[in-house]
Amino acid sequence: MVKLENSKLSESVSNKNITTSLSDCVVNLDHGDPTAYEEYWRKIGDRCTVTIHGCDLMSYFSDVTNLCWFLEPELADAIKELHSAVGNAATEDRYIVVGTGSTQLCQAAVHALSSLAGTHPVSVVAAAPFYSTYVEETTYVRSGLYKWEGDAWGFDKKGPYIELVTSPNNPDGTIRETVVNRPDDDEAKVIHDFAYYWPHYTPITRRQDHDIMLFTFSKITGHAGSRIGWALVKDKAVAKKMVEYIIVNSIGVSKESQIRTAKILKVLKETCTSESESENFFKYGREMMKNRWEKLLEVVKESDVFTLPKYPEAFCNYFEKSLESYPAFAWLGTKEETDLVSELRRQKVMTRAGERCGSDKKHVRVSMLSREDVFNVFLERLANMKLIKSN
Amino acid sequence: MVKLENSKLSESVSNKNITTSLSDCVVNLDHGDPTAYEEYWRKIGDRCTVTIHGCDLMSYFSDVTNLCWFLEPELADAIKELHSAVGNAATEDRYIVVGTGSTQLCQAAVHALSSLAGTHPVSVVAAAPFYSTYVEETTYVRSGLYKWEGDAWGFDKKGPYIELVTSPNNPDGTIRETVVNRPDDDEAKVIHDFAYYWPHYTPITRRQDHDIMLFTFSKITGHAGSRIGWALVKDKAVAKKMVEYIIVNSIGVSKESQIRTAKILKVLKETCTSESESENFFKYGREMMKNRWEKLLEVVKESDVFTLPKYPEAFCNYFEKSLESYPAFAWLGTKEETDLVSELRRQKVMTRAGERCGSDKKHVRVSMLSREDVFNVFLERLANMKLIKSN
Repeated sequence: MVKLENSKLSESVSNKNITTSLSDCVVNLDHGDPTAYEEYWRKIGDRCTVTIHGCDLMSYFSDVTNLCWFLEPELADAIKELHSAVGNAATEDRYIVVGTGSTQLCQAAVHALSSLAGTHPVSVVAAAPFYSTYVEETTYVRSGLYKWEGDAWGFDKKGPYIELVTSPNNPDGTIRETVVNRPDDDEAKVIHDFAYYWPHYTPITRRQDHDIMLFTFSKITGHAGSRIGWALVKDKAVAKKMVEYIIVNSIGVSKESQIRTAKILKVLKETCTSESESENFFKYGREMMKNRWEKLLEVVKESDVFTLPKYPEAFCNYFEKSLESYPAFAWLGTKEETDLVSELRRQKVMTRAGERCGSDKKHVRVSMLSREDVFNVFLERLANMKLIKSN
Repeated sequence: MVKLENSKLSESVSNKNITTSLSDCVVNLDHGDPTAYEEYWRKIGDRCTVTIHGCDLMSYFSDVTNLCWFLEPELADAIKELHSAVGNAATEDRYIVVGTGSTQLCQAAVHALSSLAGTHPVSVVAAAPFYSTYVEETTYVRSGLYKWEGDAWGFDKKGPYIELVTSPNNPDGTIRETVVNRPDDDEAKVIHDFAYYWPHYTPITRRQDHDIMLFTFSKITGHAGSRIGWALVKDKAVAKKMVEYIIVNSIGVSKESQIRTAKILKVLKETCTSESESENFFKYGREMMKNRWEKLLEVVKESDVFTLPKYPEAFCNYFEKSLESYPAFAWLGTKEETDLVSELRRQKVMTRAGERCGSDKKHVRVSMLSREDVFNVFLERLANMKLIKSN
């Protein structure tokens, strides 16, 4: 059985319970619980409040004329309007498939593409370092349809394959394109995971228009508890198979979450042209991330043992200026030969091991989206760390 | 690829769109969309209204001290209180696992039990006629962990197996117990699906206390759009594996749906001791179902070609009197040698083919939970039907 990445969360103290004696607590930055944005949504007040009556949203069906009949029409509208306002993805001539988070959608897409392939199992790859959850998602049911083949760098197996491209990448924040390039191969399929392709994290340099693009509500606004993601899918047969997967997997997606997401995305769209940082969520988010990254870079610079990737500036079409990247995760490395995840655990800081992301012991993934006090405790502990050399 | 049972829904007219010219429309009673109860919830007014602010429910986590850390504590409380008030299931010394409908939980349970088994694939069986969706749920990912082996009657394969027991049964409403009985076999596992074990459908004759019991919000109150189900699980290792499955499958379950379900279940519990039919949901539901079943039985009696199962009366501990069963589906049969699903389709009535439930062409499953006007159109068409003999 695969090692499950979130299962250990319940065994440690989460952000939620850290209120009083934070200094003694384990701080969990292993997962990417995006609680950093709560403050913004508290300040925005009743504009995002939804009221649901006892007789609302009872049917399985949202729109029987839609291929994705469990998608609430107002959510579909809000998704299209937001992408149009931000300019990060094309929505025209595409099917929108809603999912219980992009987690369910990624599996739906892998299922759909491999179901439609001529031979099985279809290889699934991602360039290291990759989102460690991809490993679990493609192995836990031991499907005969597809097979996780690990790192896309050096992948040369014949036959159908699916490459998962995450850009900006989780865990290391780099801008990614496909690595296994077989342009004339009909059996080469790509799923683009754009969870972090939003202007608070990265410059919006182009309007993406790939075959299958995944987005998640969790990482845009921080509403992870809603479990809402969406896929923009060009091919009808693929969209249909994804819908079929979600029907058998969970007979659709929570209507309550969908209408709340619709409301919040609409507010996001309305406020995203505002010059005010307290009003415009992306401005607010960018400032917060900038502030955190500057603090982290300062600690890393002072330490002389830690490393962080460097990101090039790029012109952001949304902010209309050249900007830095402030990824949702820090891909923290060390110059020493040491097991960094264990070293950090000793300091009561939980992070994700680089090895789980197809990398090495010298790297860990650290969430940058915790609550402010938790982030500050992390910085303090990092600044005070003395590494033990191993081999 | 398996035939997907709900995918064809989008191609026909659903209840939702039937308003004006119902007489010409296709009425879809294939699925069990439980819209029959909307009227009750409309009348109950603001007692079930939930208001959710923009900054609420943002984290992945509901309670990090709970094995099922994505379960909202107020939902756990509401579930326990309702079972206690109705007396249909034991909740003490059990883990509650919440799922995106009992659909996700059934797969989580099959996954958990087979993951923990010594050899693979584990056989999965259900006594015919069975819930046709079980076939899709256990085949669509082509898992190497388990294998659908069909009808439990006559199943004699050696090795580990899981029997799915639905009681009252979907599609035929009968009270079920295990069919493959290997009491001394450690490899014999059972999942009890109690979706319909509520007092509006069937007499509550005992407080169930099996190892794994599944329930769904959809069929109790009709809130199918919320996608909430729960499992009561005795064994910690099984509960843990189920939680792991749900983490990888969808990283938990919509918080919005959970808190709304909690609110509605609490109202259900508060009103379930009331003598008033307009107040007590189970009284209301039972009267509505009684009325529908009496009308259907009348049509069937008049026709002389259709058949329906007979259900024995039993003493209901909840209503404290001897009562009939009024199942959520009618298991309609015909005395003629005919393909009943096609005959009904010709009359623009969509039903589920008996063959898909492991039975024959002479039977279909008909939802009894549609809106009233749709149900009446069905009765009218059934009364006017002339069957064409085949063979």
